[in-house]
Amino acid sequence: MTSGKAQQILLVSRPEGPPTPENFRLEDMDMPVPGPGQILVEAAYLSLDPYMRGRMSAAKSYAPPVELGTVMAGETVGTVLASQHPDFQVGDWVAARTGWRSHAAVKGTAARKIDVEAAPASTYLGVLGMPGFTAYCGLMEIGKPKAGETLVVAAASGPVGSLVGQLARRLELTTIGIAGGPEKCKALTELFGFDRSIDHHDADLEANLAEACPKGIDIYFENVGGRVWNAVFPLLNQFARVPVCGVVSLYSGETPSGSATVPELMQTILRKSLTLRGFINYDLIAYYPAFLREVVPAVQDGSIRYKEDVVEGLAAAPEAFMGMLKGKNFGKLLVKLV
Amino acid sequence: MTSGKAQQILLVSRPEGPPTPENFRLEDMDMPVPGPGQILVEAAYLSLDPYMRGRMSAAKSYAPPVELGTVMAGETVGTVLASQHPDFQVGDWVAARTGWRSHAAVKGTAARKIDVEAAPASTYLGVLGMPGFTAYCGLMEIGKPKAGETLVVAAASGPVGSLVGQLARRLELTTIGIAGGPEKCKALTELFGFDRSIDHHDADLEANLAEACPKGIDIYFENVGGRVWNAVFPLLNQFARVPVCGVVSLYSGETPSGSATVPELMQTILRKSLTLRGFINYDLIAYYPAFLREVVPAVQDGSIRYKEDVVEGLAAAPEAFMGMLKGKNFGKLLVKLV
Repeated sequence: MTSGKAQQILLVSRPEGPPTPENFRLEDMDMPVPGPGQILVEAAYLSLDPYMRGRMSAAKSYAPPVELGTVMAGETVGTVLASQHPDFQVGDWVAARTGWRSHAAVKGTAARKIDVEAAPASTYLGVLGMPGFTAYCGLMEIGKPKAGETLVVAAASGPVGSLVGQLARRLELTTIGIAGGPEKCKALTELFGFDRSIDHHDADLEANLAEACPKGIDIYFENVGGRVWNAVFPLLNQFARVPVCGVVSLYSGETPSGSATVPELMQTILRKSLTLRGFINYDLIAYYPAFLREVVPAVQDGSIRYKEDVVEGLAAAPEAFMGMLKGKNFGKLLVKLV
Repeated sequence: MTSGKAQQILLVSRPEGPPTPENFRLEDMDMPVPGPGQILVEAAYLSLDPYMRGRMSAAKSYAPPVELGTVMAGETVGTVLASQHPDFQVGDWVAARTGWRSHAAVKGTAARKIDVEAAPASTYLGVLGMPGFTAYCGLMEIGKPKAGETLVVAAASGPVGSLVGQLARRLELTTIGIAGGPEKCKALTELFGFDRSIDHHDADLEANLAEACPKGIDIYFENVGGRVWNAVFPLLNQFARVPVCGVVSLYSGETPSGSATVPELMQTILRKSLTLRGFINYDLIAYYPAFLREVVPAVQDGSIRYKEDVVEGLAAAPEAFMGMLKGKNFGKLLVKLV
């Protein structure tokens, strides 16, 4: 009924600044046994995402922190090994928030079936999953894109940023992607179809961005903060919209220099009639049907592209996660478990 | 055809920090002569408003700066002394952006008639004018008030804040007004019907505000910035909305201590799914009919109240304006000209 031994990764201490290997512990676990209404899932892929850094802290946020000594939170896709729920059969593919573990018994109501004929299972953790939907709902609800406008997104080779850029391009915006290093920047224009790429490692980031945005910036999809925000800020146009879905730079311990003060920011919000709005994808779930209707066929026909960065084995998860917070991944970061 | 001599106040230098008397010059002027399509207006009241400080600076903003050597920008209500426009008769009451001057010849298309039978002429510069409409459209479009929520507004005895509070109270929100000094705070609860008043001169501002908002803050109508913003910021609830219509503290040269940094602000925008949005009332003009429909009858029947602070004579305008930026006015600041 099961394949292989069961393992999980616990959060055993909270990081101050960037996470370290000591924050995590890999351990064997008893194979879970599904109770009434539950299913036993064997995870095939675990998704690693920046928001998990927030869960490692005790600070109050939109979701409760992971308790010390318990399994790290996360979503997986996998197959049903045993079912005590009438809607699920052995062999069904599902997505569920099972955490950083190889196997889990979860309520059937907490799992959703995925169609691995329509697209590879892993895409339901990326372009067709939470990151893709974050890109879609944030762009549509807050960004309010209009043809001819200029959109800038950072971490643009990642699963959120790459879809933000492609969606905006389909809506005839000029799209500028920011990423770290020549390899990622090459992918921005060649794979994801951005009009321009900007390397944030470049000392001339500010000047390069200004040159790439001669008409200013109408939408800045904020997912990194720090130095990129400082470069974007003076270029924002009247009525610019800033969906805020992440501030990864805060997790890296980066201290941006030369940033505007809060009073200056507030004055600019006023002077330029800016909108800054934070959001969590599940608060915008009304967009989910439209997301599926637009993005699934485009992924199937190849007109929307995605890139995955896959590491092997649960034991590799902590290092891969720590690297992601420093920008070392290239594409949607996944841990392949079987 | 005219009454009295014509005078105007020019902007002759730009302030660094708070304006000084040397920035202004009062001078006699020739009585304007209306050309074809124009009307000659004798101003009865000149409105003094915080936004005027922005126009005194050369910095790019939502409106162009006042050029040095030209008349200070501003709105007046007054009567038509001569008309070369078919829609206006001598004796009609109008509101127009005539500037800091006693008389002006303006295009008929740039003036709007006001109904001084429905409400006193001066109210069309306050509760029924630009400040009132700013309160209304910002609250409705960005604040999105819901019964049972908590709203906080600063400068709450002023023309914007006092209407924000009264409108919110009519919608069954809990309303907390912040003002400077016991006299203004008394007016907040007794005249304007706020549930609670907070004195921002009090050293315990932060603790008092926290105590007054046991369920946190859902809407903060931002019109002052500085220390008040610092007190509000930690109390903002998940999904709180912050319409930004002014940052008066910036004009006073106040440097708030202990404020969050921009990265901390961005992180909180994310964690709490906050909306910060700057706005200018004329960009939300679609709300104007609803504003008139709701507020004019309520002013007439006394269920919405207003307070005016009137100084006499154009020569008094600079000092009154400088005092307003320091919070010295109590109610809508007007200069009575005739």
